[in-house]
Amino acid sequence: MGTKKYSLGIDFGTLSGRAVLVEVESGNIIATAVREYTHGVMDEYLPDGKTRLGPDWALQHPADYLEVLETAVPQVLKESGVKPEDVIGLGIDFTACTMLPIDREGKPLCFREEFRSNPNSYVKLWKHHAAQPQADRLNELARKRNESFLNRYGGKISSEWLFPKIMQILEEAPEIYEAAYKFMEAGDWIVMTLTGNERRNSCTAGYKAIWSKREGYPSKDFFRELNPRLENVVDEKLSRDIYPIGSKAGELTPEMAAKTGLLPGTAVAVANVDAHVAVPAVGIVEPGKMLMIMGTSTCHMVLGTEEKMVPGMCGVVEDGIIPGFLGYEAGQSCVGDHFQWFVENCLPASYEEEAKKRGIGIHDLLVEKVRKQRPGESGLLALDWWNGNRSVLVDADLTGLLLGCTLTTKPEEIYRALIEATAFGTNMIIETFEKNGVAIKELYACGGIAEKNEFMMQVYADVTNREIRISGSPQTVALGSAMFGAVAAGKGKGGYDTIFEAAKAMSKVRKDYYKPIPENVAIYKKLYEEYRILHDYFGRGVNDVMKRLKSLKVRTG
Amino acid sequence: MGTKKYSLGIDFGTLSGRAVLVEVESGNIIATAVREYTHGVMDEYLPDGKTRLGPDWALQHPADYLEVLETAVPQVLKESGVKPEDVIGLGIDFTACTMLPIDREGKPLCFREEFRSNPNSYVKLWKHHAAQPQADRLNELARKRNESFLNRYGGKISSEWLFPKIMQILEEAPEIYEAAYKFMEAGDWIVMTLTGNERRNSCTAGYKAIWSKREGYPSKDFFRELNPRLENVVDEKLSRDIYPIGSKAGELTPEMAAKTGLLPGTAVAVANVDAHVAVPAVGIVEPGKMLMIMGTSTCHMVLGTEEKMVPGMCGVVEDGIIPGFLGYEAGQSCVGDHFQWFVENCLPASYEEEAKKRGIGIHDLLVEKVRKQRPGESGLLALDWWNGNRSVLVDADLTGLLLGCTLTTKPEEIYRALIEATAFGTNMIIETFEKNGVAIKELYACGGIAEKNEFMMQVYADVTNREIRISGSPQTVALGSAMFGAVAAGKGKGGYDTIFEAAKAMSKVRKDYYKPIPENVAIYKKLYEEYRILHDYFGRGVNDVMKRLKSLKVRTG
Repeated sequence: MGTKKYSLGIDFGTLSGRAVLVEVESGNIIATAVREYTHGVMDEYLPDGKTRLGPDWALQHPADYLEVLETAVPQVLKESGVKPEDVIGLGIDFTACTMLPIDREGKPLCFREEFRSNPNSYVKLWKHHAAQPQADRLNELARKRNESFLNRYGGKISSEWLFPKIMQILEEAPEIYEAAYKFMEAGDWIVMTLTGNERRNSCTAGYKAIWSKREGYPSKDFFRELNPRLENVVDEKLSRDIYPIGSKAGELTPEMAAKTGLLPGTAVAVANVDAHVAVPAVGIVEPGKMLMIMGTSTCHMVLGTEEKMVPGMCGVVEDGIIPGFLGYEAGQSCVGDHFQWFVENCLPASYEEEAKKRGIGIHDLLVEKVRKQRPGESGLLALDWWNGNRSVLVDADLTGLLLGCTLTTKPEEIYRALIEATAFGTNMIIETFEKNGVAIKELYACGGIAEKNEFMMQVYADVTNREIRISGSPQTVALGSAMFGAVAAGKGKGGYDTIFEAAKAMSKVRKDYYKPIPENVAIYKKLYEEYRILHDYFGRGVNDVMKRLKSLKVRTG
Repeated sequence: MGTKKYSLGIDFGTLSGRAVLVEVESGNIIATAVREYTHGVMDEYLPDGKTRLGPDWALQHPADYLEVLETAVPQVLKESGVKPEDVIGLGIDFTACTMLPIDREGKPLCFREEFRSNPNSYVKLWKHHAAQPQADRLNELARKRNESFLNRYGGKISSEWLFPKIMQILEEAPEIYEAAYKFMEAGDWIVMTLTGNERRNSCTAGYKAIWSKREGYPSKDFFRELNPRLENVVDEKLSRDIYPIGSKAGELTPEMAAKTGLLPGTAVAVANVDAHVAVPAVGIVEPGKMLMIMGTSTCHMVLGTEEKMVPGMCGVVEDGIIPGFLGYEAGQSCVGDHFQWFVENCLPASYEEEAKKRGIGIHDLLVEKVRKQRPGESGLLALDWWNGNRSVLVDADLTGLLLGCTLTTKPEEIYRALIEATAFGTNMIIETFEKNGVAIKELYACGGIAEKNEFMMQVYADVTNREIRISGSPQTVALGSAMFGAVAAGKGKGGYDTIFEAAKAMSKVRKDYYKPIPENVAIYKKLYEEYRILHDYFGRGVNDVMKRLKSLKVRTG
């Protein structure tokens, strides 16, 4: 004992990778280093500067991920002065589904000269949306065949997920499909690069690759009907060996040790997804507590002990978040984006000037203006569907609604109505989980909005009538990865044997938390009843005006 | 013959009076003079500067009207060089119900020293809203007694009308009620001042004083139940002699001739209302043609041959607009106000800057940005209820709705959706008239919006699938008054014997008119069907969310 031990969490985001060195004993952060991706998100041209990408494409260059390992990791060691022998483990999290084709040696196909100008050889980023036609066909066939897996994903497979992306490669670039020894999640590929072991994780397999612990992948029969060449896609191009979250993937190879400055043999955890890894980082390792990861959109995570079919969730995966539990995920597709839209499109010049003059942010100004109002005082009510509805209606064709406007309606009142609408949307998700047997007793939140916007969090507490605890770490996601790194190392090496022990010691929540204010709860209960009536009227097919307007828009546009 | 003859129209508006001299032969305008009211609208203090007015009060000083006669009339004579003997007639129109108490000599009570500090002695302007409690009681009693007159006014008597205002005087200042020899519409009072004759007009009596040619006023019984002291209000304080629009009230007295510069004996028409007098000025003297007077709100006028009970109209009055016809009035309470609200509350700084830089109006900029879009292209749909709904729902508690928002929705698209919503509202009025037996074949429009906003008028033509003709006179309302002045003079004096003849010679419409564009008509037909579904769902009691939100607003505010 004696010497302090450290674990490393590496968070691969959409625009950069971030290495965070954490004290295993306390979860305190010692050093952080960020490396922007050299190629960023490629959505117009390949790196050759000549090959044009189609609409809705979003690629990345896998060399950028390796740069993160080779620069950010040495940097945190150097800055902290921590010795490599005291870094006992390493965990990584990645955006998902972010996938790439590799060759037999584990090298990305886009590294090869002959595929350099072939867009389908690169990493398809999570937000690559060009496989929508493939997703549509997959969903159509699954519905026709009444495939049971649809129930686990709220009835729909997203174009962002693995199989539509593989289908696109097969159809548009059969030579890449042919040349691919395997398709891998970028997170699993990084873990393989670090350890030499292919150890696919249960989180991305479950949430993004239609895999379940009990039923495995969709049947060969299904894949054959989708495309005869896909019949054996799982056995030929993926793997049926899936490792639960919390397992050790292997140990750092001498080659990667040399590149990162860590010691060979350092324990490496199986990969994880950025949102999911945040759950234990706020101390959630049991059912009843929902984590909201709040940014441009919101992701909701909760654990259960039984597999329940909750309408409109994004997925339920055994071992998907915490080993031994069902991990449920739901989502709202428009949260921070909502407010950004408002500020860009609906804000009078006088407000912009006032914020500028007083040197405060425009969001702060709006909140300041409207926080004195009591709930219901504006008479406004909105449906938060500016970007469709993910959970619980799973309907991208729904659109936003604002009701209750008068000639005295002020911009800040509209802004507040949008905040409240997202809170009502969250409450609808909570209610749906509870009605279907998944209890939600308490809320946790992390992400920019949760950490900064006190007014909004109080609204959420009042609307949901639940206490809300806020993540106490400035790097919630990377902390979660570091925790899994400490678990991969195990107690014998100064880490922990389970994520439960790691969470007990390392997780962070703020001491203060949001408590519902009873007067507000009472008014919001009434407003939520109105929200629910409109939600069901416009969202459940009573009046499909939003869809009809959207189809008219497409036809006339 | 030989010498040209002229008629004078005097339009008493909310803030000023306007004298307009018109060629009787052609309807061409020769000269115009405007006189602002010295006391404007008094809504805070009486002229003594000490007596504070309550909320919702709006008074005027009758001396200001006399100033218009004594300054603007001589001015047009002087400017035009027209000789007084060539001015054959005079017609006036006034805002309504704008009423005052007078003494036996016809002098306003507020002119008397002892009542100078008594607010109830002054002119109550049309938009004086402080008699709402009285209007509520009047409506309640009328409903209880199932009074048939309610049907003629869409089921509700407004607090702006005559009897609530008289009730307020009786209740708050019984000494004024007592001292009043008569209560008069300001228009009728001006005519009496000019001619020495009390000749109350059928337009204000019908639309504002619950009078009808067939049924007269409400019964003594009704008034007694309302307040025993009101039992004989009609016989004691008003008059049952009502003169149809188009009659001659009398001739100019020597005293008023001296003050105006006109000749004694000049014919004076009975008074009229500003909106109603515009109807013959655009040439409408027959059924089937609806005039829209478009400003901050819109007033719809149409003639009929039979009395039909059209739900949600503002009133139906025999001889109310053109003698021999039923005059129907309907209204939309938020048109120009709608766009003003949008520009003040929802317009990004960048738009304001662009308009400034290019030196164009903000409304022009918005129209320019959105006019290229085809109907339906934005996917937006609105209910134009920012200020409640006048016709056809007669419900001030309804509120505005915007539906179809996405993250790519632009300000100009919302602006266009508001324009379209007001057009749908007009179409709903037209449809309701037609369903109830009042045909509307063609539309006419006057007022600022109609004359300036081509884009909006084309939207109205496309939505209503009707041709729209625009007033061709820069002073539509005063022209109408001058036409009635020429009719009061009669053919023998160089005028006309009927308003029909006057309209044929003097009315003005632009040569070009708006024609529906078939492709747009087809799309708007679909959008209107969606509007109608929402209109009925929110407006006809299926989902009273707007009212519930409003009551919550009041309780929490």
